[in-house]
Amino acid sequence: MSFSKSRAARPALAGWLSTGNSITQQFMAIGGRADVVSLAGGLPAAELYPVEAIAAASERALTRWGSAILEYGPIEGLPALRAAIATRFSATTGRSFGPENVLLTTGAMQGLDLVGKALVDPGELIVAQFPTYLGALDAWRPREPSYAQLDWSLQRPGFEAELRRAKFVYAVPNYSNPTGALVLQAERAALLDKVLEAGTWLVEDDPYLPLQFDGPAGPSILAHHAARHPNGPYDGPVIYLGTLSKSLTPGLRVGWVVGEAGMVATLALAKQSTDIASSLLTQAIALELIESGFEADHVPRIVTAYRDRRDALCRAATEHLSEWFEWEAPPGGMFVWMRAKTTDIDTDALYAHALAEKVAFVPSSVFDPDGALKSAMRVNFTRSSPEVLVEGVRRLERAVKRYLAARAGRAA
Amino acid sequence: MSFSKSRAARPALAGWLSTGNSITQQFMAIGGRADVVSLAGGLPAAELYPVEAIAAASERALTRWGSAILEYGPIEGLPALRAAIATRFSATTGRSFGPENVLLTTGAMQGLDLVGKALVDPGELIVAQFPTYLGALDAWRPREPSYAQLDWSLQRPGFEAELRRAKFVYAVPNYSNPTGALVLQAERAALLDKVLEAGTWLVEDDPYLPLQFDGPAGPSILAHHAARHPNGPYDGPVIYLGTLSKSLTPGLRVGWVVGEAGMVATLALAKQSTDIASSLLTQAIALELIESGFEADHVPRIVTAYRDRRDALCRAATEHLSEWFEWEAPPGGMFVWMRAKTTDIDTDALYAHALAEKVAFVPSSVFDPDGALKSAMRVNFTRSSPEVLVEGVRRLERAVKRYLAARAGRAA
Repeated sequence: MSFSKSRAARPALAGWLSTGNSITQQFMAIGGRADVVSLAGGLPAAELYPVEAIAAASERALTRWGSAILEYGPIEGLPALRAAIATRFSATTGRSFGPENVLLTTGAMQGLDLVGKALVDPGELIVAQFPTYLGALDAWRPREPSYAQLDWSLQRPGFEAELRRAKFVYAVPNYSNPTGALVLQAERAALLDKVLEAGTWLVEDDPYLPLQFDGPAGPSILAHHAARHPNGPYDGPVIYLGTLSKSLTPGLRVGWVVGEAGMVATLALAKQSTDIASSLLTQAIALELIESGFEADHVPRIVTAYRDRRDALCRAATEHLSEWFEWEAPPGGMFVWMRAKTTDIDTDALYAHALAEKVAFVPSSVFDPDGALKSAMRVNFTRSSPEVLVEGVRRLERAVKRYLAARAGRAA
Repeated sequence: MSFSKSRAARPALAGWLSTGNSITQQFMAIGGRADVVSLAGGLPAAELYPVEAIAAASERALTRWGSAILEYGPIEGLPALRAAIATRFSATTGRSFGPENVLLTTGAMQGLDLVGKALVDPGELIVAQFPTYLGALDAWRPREPSYAQLDWSLQRPGFEAELRRAKFVYAVPNYSNPTGALVLQAERAALLDKVLEAGTWLVEDDPYLPLQFDGPAGPSILAHHAARHPNGPYDGPVIYLGTLSKSLTPGLRVGWVVGEAGMVATLALAKQSTDIASSLLTQAIALELIESGFEADHVPRIVTAYRDRRDALCRAATEHLSEWFEWEAPPGGMFVWMRAKTTDIDTDALYAHALAEKVAFVPSSVFDPDGALKSAMRVNFTRSSPEVLVEGVRRLERAVKRYLAARAGRAA
């Protein structure tokens, strides 16, 4: 190879990339391997994607809008879909939301990227629910923030000072990623009080809202704030992120940010710097699926399927994994958070044995900004059939046994 | 309003936003006003968007791929479209490109964002063709770079040192935005020499490639490099950006980055942090339009229309504006770059008079990282019919006269 002689060394990459992780790419690649049972990704059940409804919606959208949805955009997205999302929030919160309160994004993930771009300079503080959604940590890595842990009990000394210093608080109150936990209504209200006192923003990330298995999730923090201030256009501190990725399909890449109009305008400036606009075509398809009532009819079907899958996973885990792990069955969402009962299990180390047994999960370290949390694993139950989930749990049991045997061998 | 009492002041925005501009939003808003002739945006002719072909392609894509194109992705994009783009580059450059050399993006704009994210830390240097595409400046603003001017003559003292210090060079050799200039082949080759010597990257932004009015554009800088090193997979310093926004429609938001596999993998990590993946559905529609030969058949139709529009604009400008401005008719692309003949014209100031006459252009200051270039304007000819272009030029003439009269009045 003349390769290394023929060129000078090239410039260094940006600093944040040395702290990056490739684990999401790994999971997505594993997702394509037929011989591996992936309990890793946060993926919906592909067999439930409404392919025919989307084909019909695409045809209707192009007939309805013609070349107008083949333009660059407005940056903020298709006005009719912004209005439809605003109407949904007005109806569910009792506050007045208009299109000016809604920015359409390439999935809720882009909302996280834009919030980071708009608010965070290197070294600044984010107070984040811990453990923290991997994608949020990824989204903010290029802004090089520091982190403090959101303490839902609000008891930790110094927490109020951290809130005052923070650019924003990050919370996933409904069926959190990775833990599946549903935050109590009283805790939501109490956090909102503290956020208002501190004068900071609150990013409420709510992708799992449609996936309610055991009764209603109750009001969002956005709705709490709206109930306290029912009059006039929304001007509160909540920056709310939603998506169609869980209720319909992630492939449309349609998400939204709902917030006060000034913040939405700021995030639109950040979006202009990012990709000018998302596809209006996929937004127009989403509009058809919402306006026709298809989305509302579809959600109960996926909820039924996912509830069965959660139950199948938890039953199998009780049989095969409860010697080493404990968990609560989540009342919604996509994940069971399994915590090691003893300190001799390191889930980073377990992961290699799991891959050897052809099963994948997400080790807890990637949900910790410092990478230090190694005592738990996130297990997805939405992607696979109950039968495959049971097989995955059996493989996990073998992986744990292999791992502990290898540890014992080294210790001996 | 109880509004200001009811909340504490909120945290400051990220620093780069204080240097941001809202001019792209303004242009896009003006584009929606029927009474204004907009010569401002870089927009294609909406009446040439192939609505029916896209509807048919959407139906074919969903039949062909089903739920597979409703997934999150792979981050890098639909493998079959990556392969199709790679094949195009292998065919036109004689070098071996594979899918691993191609990242699909939300328009070429996202490629610019990702290059900035991957390579630039605050204060680091970009050597950019001057004047510089506004969208590139927007894309890199959050990374807070410094700029030096790309000198195509390679004569400026200190230029080689700047290249060695730069994270990358940014060039638009084909029908540049904003100037419409076509860079000579000898200049491309000479710049490539210097880039190789300096050991930096070269970002070649090529959105206007399909819009060749007066004969072929000739090889890209990527092709120059490939011709020198014809064997093996591509491993050169060129990071090439392309898009379907000009040949088909911007609303699909399908663009691509072509480069060495390691850089493509790095940009994919940056994309993971940005939006996880672009829509596979729109990528699959694009694949249908490419594979079927539709894109290749469509390009000559738009080239014919745009050539007529360029000619109509330049004829009208010769009649109405040549007293105050000079320009070269561009051999391709979307823009005429009109430079004031005398120093008493400031195009920022002229812009207000133009809006009063219900015509818009883009003042040169936004194409200068320092905002100091105020002697020129970018005039778009692709969006409007020849008749509307002529009317727009007449309004521009009235705006110049109003402006100069107002200046004379103040001076008196």
